[in-house]
Amino acid sequence: MRDVAIVGAGMTQFGELWTASLRSLFVEAALGALESARADHVDSIYVGNMSAGQFVGQEHLGPLMADALGMRGVPAVRVESACASGGHALRLGCMEVASGMADLVLVTGVEKMTDGVDVTNVLATASDQENEVYHGITFPGLYAMIARAHMQSRGTTEKDLHWVSVKNHRHGALNPKAQFRGEVSVEDVAASSMVAEPLRLLHCSPVSDGAAAVLLAPLARAKEFTDRPVRITGSGAATSAMALADRADPAFLDAVEKSAQRAYAMAGIQPKDIDVAEVHDCFAIAEICALEAMRLTEGCNPVQAARSGYTALGGKRPVNTSGGLKSKGHPVGASGVAQAIEIFEQLRGEAGERQVAGAHRGATQNMGGSGASSVVHIFERV
Amino acid sequence: MRDVAIVGAGMTQFGELWTASLRSLFVEAALGALESARADHVDSIYVGNMSAGQFVGQEHLGPLMADALGMRGVPAVRVESACASGGHALRLGCMEVASGMADLVLVTGVEKMTDGVDVTNVLATASDQENEVYHGITFPGLYAMIARAHMQSRGTTEKDLHWVSVKNHRHGALNPKAQFRGEVSVEDVAASSMVAEPLRLLHCSPVSDGAAAVLLAPLARAKEFTDRPVRITGSGAATSAMALADRADPAFLDAVEKSAQRAYAMAGIQPKDIDVAEVHDCFAIAEICALEAMRLTEGCNPVQAARSGYTALGGKRPVNTSGGLKSKGHPVGASGVAQAIEIFEQLRGEAGERQVAGAHRGATQNMGGSGASSVVHIFERV
Repeated sequence: MRDVAIVGAGMTQFGELWTASLRSLFVEAALGALESARADHVDSIYVGNMSAGQFVGQEHLGPLMADALGMRGVPAVRVESACASGGHALRLGCMEVASGMADLVLVTGVEKMTDGVDVTNVLATASDQENEVYHGITFPGLYAMIARAHMQSRGTTEKDLHWVSVKNHRHGALNPKAQFRGEVSVEDVAASSMVAEPLRLLHCSPVSDGAAAVLLAPLARAKEFTDRPVRITGSGAATSAMALADRADPAFLDAVEKSAQRAYAMAGIQPKDIDVAEVHDCFAIAEICALEAMRLTEGCNPVQAARSGYTALGGKRPVNTSGGLKSKGHPVGASGVAQAIEIFEQLRGEAGERQVAGAHRGATQNMGGSGASSVVHIFERV
Repeated sequence: MRDVAIVGAGMTQFGELWTASLRSLFVEAALGALESARADHVDSIYVGNMSAGQFVGQEHLGPLMADALGMRGVPAVRVESACASGGHALRLGCMEVASGMADLVLVTGVEKMTDGVDVTNVLATASDQENEVYHGITFPGLYAMIARAHMQSRGTTEKDLHWVSVKNHRHGALNPKAQFRGEVSVEDVAASSMVAEPLRLLHCSPVSDGAAAVLLAPLARAKEFTDRPVRITGSGAATSAMALADRADPAFLDAVEKSAQRAYAMAGIQPKDIDVAEVHDCFAIAEICALEAMRLTEGCNPVQAARSGYTALGGKRPVNTSGGLKSKGHPVGASGVAQAIEIFEQLRGEAGERQVAGAHRGATQNMGGSGASSVVHIFERV
């Protein structure tokens, strides 16, 4: 199995991008990745996307995007695992390079959500249609139940949730690509409107448009494209029960735990070896659950990790330095790839005001649905 | 790169399966594959599916299907390339085994189309939404234009098209899994109602429900699971212009040519080395175009291959012995995997009345849209 590295990255602004189309977003991000690596061709393209069929009436994004990029002929395929589509695209791109079937692989994620007419219902098709959606639940409701279960079993408070949003908005304020660059206070979060009790508006990631792309190459060839490649040392994926009601502990994300353990084992590391991480904070409670399942806050209760500063910039292990899905935005198919870009920049020392000093090893965790699928990657400075 | 083999296969009946659901179809096919290989676990699952989000309101099929199969925890992801979703799922499964990241990989395809309310429009989302669908065209119209262009440039006649359907129905009449097991005559085809001139009803594959699954393993371990593994020696994928109007010759499927050349090169073979093939006959003209682009009828004009008996059972190179999409049925996400199963059975000598005597090497060609994506695989008896 060949070692794999990221040699280039590009992404669009995340936000409500009314003048951009699905394909213009893709092309902007893809060209950014190619230009940053001084590459003029690729051998294969992966497109992470959750629901362009439902959002904008377009399936078959592989050839559409290869064509739009001026790369007709290049193998290209779409990968879908709901909001973990981008993370899975990265995983498959790694496999193709590792297998030796291709050298230069462009891994992308894209979503155009703001053109959708019924976004919450489209997103709900990532939960169990027969056993959940049919009964009227959507994702804010599912995560609200996760939050309530967490409060009951771990003593988590609403204020603990508020602090996740406060921290991530502070980070996002430093990220020029973020959808929301304004800081929010604990009082702002507490006063925001209720969406699904106990989750308020400022606990929820937004509806976003955006695209992200990374270029992969065999580590042995990486220096042809950049002086600062970042190696992908671990990739782990896992699934859980599709319906929340089928899980032994609805507050524990077992797919996140399994995917992290697999990625740690492949990379030969422990959670304590990670300097910086991006985790899937689609709702504030999700960040707390991810930290718990990934064992990322040794010596600190994950519930208090944001409030105590443990996971803030300047803390022991900064998490979601990009602003996370909450502040950076969450174009669902793109988020997993954008997480990898934040870690890529951190490990190259290019994260500007968000830089984690001396960051050597990072992790990303990307989740689908209410935790039915999860993908974790481990990255190392070369 | 490790060698990869198919060690088991299972599929449902194809047809209008009103009492089956998306997940019950999947489970039946997947269990069939596992049982045929005496396997009780897998390391990874791929689900080829075009549009369950639009057809039945369900995305995120990876974890849904792993869960339904009793395999919570196993990594599982959906792959989409329109009607080539199954072929791409097979390709990614091969990569995972080849890379060494997994040993036992379950590759599946599934589609539940008859529950959809607007099937032709859903399928049209596999063409270019902005440049084709917006102007009112759907796939029968696109393939009708391909047929007209082929008639003009190659002298193809309506009768040549009729013979493709006659041949494939003759084959399908011998396939217990086929949706249509009745033979049709040239006169039947000529008298069937016009769909999109010059394509008539009996030139068109049907709307179908169904699922198919194959189990992959490293060739070195294949004998643990079966006495008769079939090796996958070549895998090639390619794309073309998404919109038909953007192609230099709309009657020539350049993505099919490129994907075939890549697969032949990987397998180290020539087209003449192939004993039996399944190609993507979503419309009768598509089979003719695929034979042409794959160079599968040396010494015979591909236009006359069906009429002359060249591609019929008993002919020089039987094509679509399963009945093809035309007669076997075309549950779009499943078709690419079902093609592989037909070749698997042929090379194991298990194709019953459809058996091609002494078949040693086979090929499959699976296509998305009007030929914007294509995947070709080469298989060999071990």
